[in-house]
Amino acid sequence: MGKVYLVGSGPGDPELISLKAYRLIKEADVILVDNLVLGVKTLIPVDKEVIDIGKIAGKHKLSQDGINELLVELSAKYDTVVRLKGGDPYIFGRGGEEAAVLKAHGVEFEVVSGITSAVAVPASFYIPLTFRGISSSVTIITGHEMEEKDESLNWDALVNLKGTLVILMGVGNLAKNVESLLGHGMRADTPVAVIEKGFTVDARLVTGTLQNIVDVAKDENVKPPAVIVIGDVVGVREQLKLLTNRV
Amino acid sequence: MGKVYLVGSGPGDPELISLKAYRLIKEADVILVDNLVLGVKTLIPVDKEVIDIGKIAGKHKLSQDGINELLVELSAKYDTVVRLKGGDPYIFGRGGEEAAVLKAHGVEFEVVSGITSAVAVPASFYIPLTFRGISSSVTIITGHEMEEKDESLNWDALVNLKGTLVILMGVGNLAKNVESLLGHGMRADTPVAVIEKGFTVDARLVTGTLQNIVDVAKDENVKPPAVIVIGDVVGVREQLKLLTNRV
Repeated sequence: MGKVYLVGSGPGDPELISLKAYRLIKEADVILVDNLVLGVKTLIPVDKEVIDIGKIAGKHKLSQDGINELLVELSAKYDTVVRLKGGDPYIFGRGGEEAAVLKAHGVEFEVVSGITSAVAVPASFYIPLTFRGISSSVTIITGHEMEEKDESLNWDALVNLKGTLVILMGVGNLAKNVESLLGHGMRADTPVAVIEKGFTVDARLVTGTLQNIVDVAKDENVKPPAVIVIGDVVGVREQLKLLTNRV
Repeated sequence: MGKVYLVGSGPGDPELISLKAYRLIKEADVILVDNLVLGVKTLIPVDKEVIDIGKIAGKHKLSQDGINELLVELSAKYDTVVRLKGGDPYIFGRGGEEAAVLKAHGVEFEVVSGITSAVAVPASFYIPLTFRGISSSVTIITGHEMEEKDESLNWDALVNLKGTLVILMGVGNLAKNVESLLGHGMRADTPVAVIEKGFTVDARLVTGTLQNIVDVAKDENVKPPAVIVIGDVVGVREQLKLLTNRV
């Protein structure tokens, strides 16, 4: 029976992958990928056996149960299975669920942490998630998660924390989430940044306030994937940004 | 005038540094380090010029202002200055403050994100910060920050969020912080993990509940640095941990 590595590939820049992840990609007998950005895919040797979950499933994505089963199956066939994920496996990456299934089947696994997009994508646009005197906490949530009733967030607490809020996978529910934050008393002039397709050639920053970001994002036709940052650290960007071509 | 790279070296495992950080270490004309774990230091070529801030300042650590000045000075002397930090520069790493000073002096800089200890150290002891049905938010704070009145945290909100709470640099204030959480109504049986010296040969996990963790940490003589995780995800560890020598 083989070993499964649940590996974070970082925020999309192939140079922001860890030395360990890169070594495992080279050593793997098989690599399971889905929705990796092109840059990260270029790190995979051309003769490597790669299973692209998106392609297997066609238009319909393979369910999480299907992925879990596939990992267990692959561990029976191969010595070294690498499940390559965007960002970090344990920051809303379903790494815990996959690990639990592997453990339940007696399959050896190891989690290799990655640089989460929640931190690196804002950094690439001069937004630090913490800044002395401005933010003393960082909270990361996901836009997807909120649709499930049993995991409903305490918006009141989120607002009262007055720290930096990062929403991953939050484009689809942006209007709903902004409404919740405003409804629970977050300042309408709280700065918001939406960063689309971080670390790709199409990376783009759209900024506004809690009051107008829904309209701005609509006008700018913002699409997933994006990292959303809400809080006064977004304003620090004006202080830090350099005059470069990109930004 | 040179360029300053504010580089995250990750959680301490030399293999969890990014390809970019590793490249910059090799390309640097000078590297500024402080409190890096030994493993990461071994990545630095022996003939490289290294300034160890701890050693300059002797027993008294160089102040943040002193470090900022030094970075500006070095940028005038060298083409490529690497400021190597533990974890990620923007997760309570003072990267924002250093970037702001560099910008104010017209010095070109770039932040290279790293894997934060907040995520990777718990992962190394089978604790996922998020888990479906158990935690729908992750909040990272620091134990140090809280001593400053102007950045006082809203403990009530932290408790009511009912997500995963990670405290960095929190050993010194553990008793005070636990008292605040209990005082604001967090369940006394909330699981707590304190992970000391993550990714070193002395890495150690101590677990308990909010009720007893202060005594447990005292009995076990827990010392900084440590990552503290508070929340039900700590209990997931029992489901995920493998039978290995280490844990």
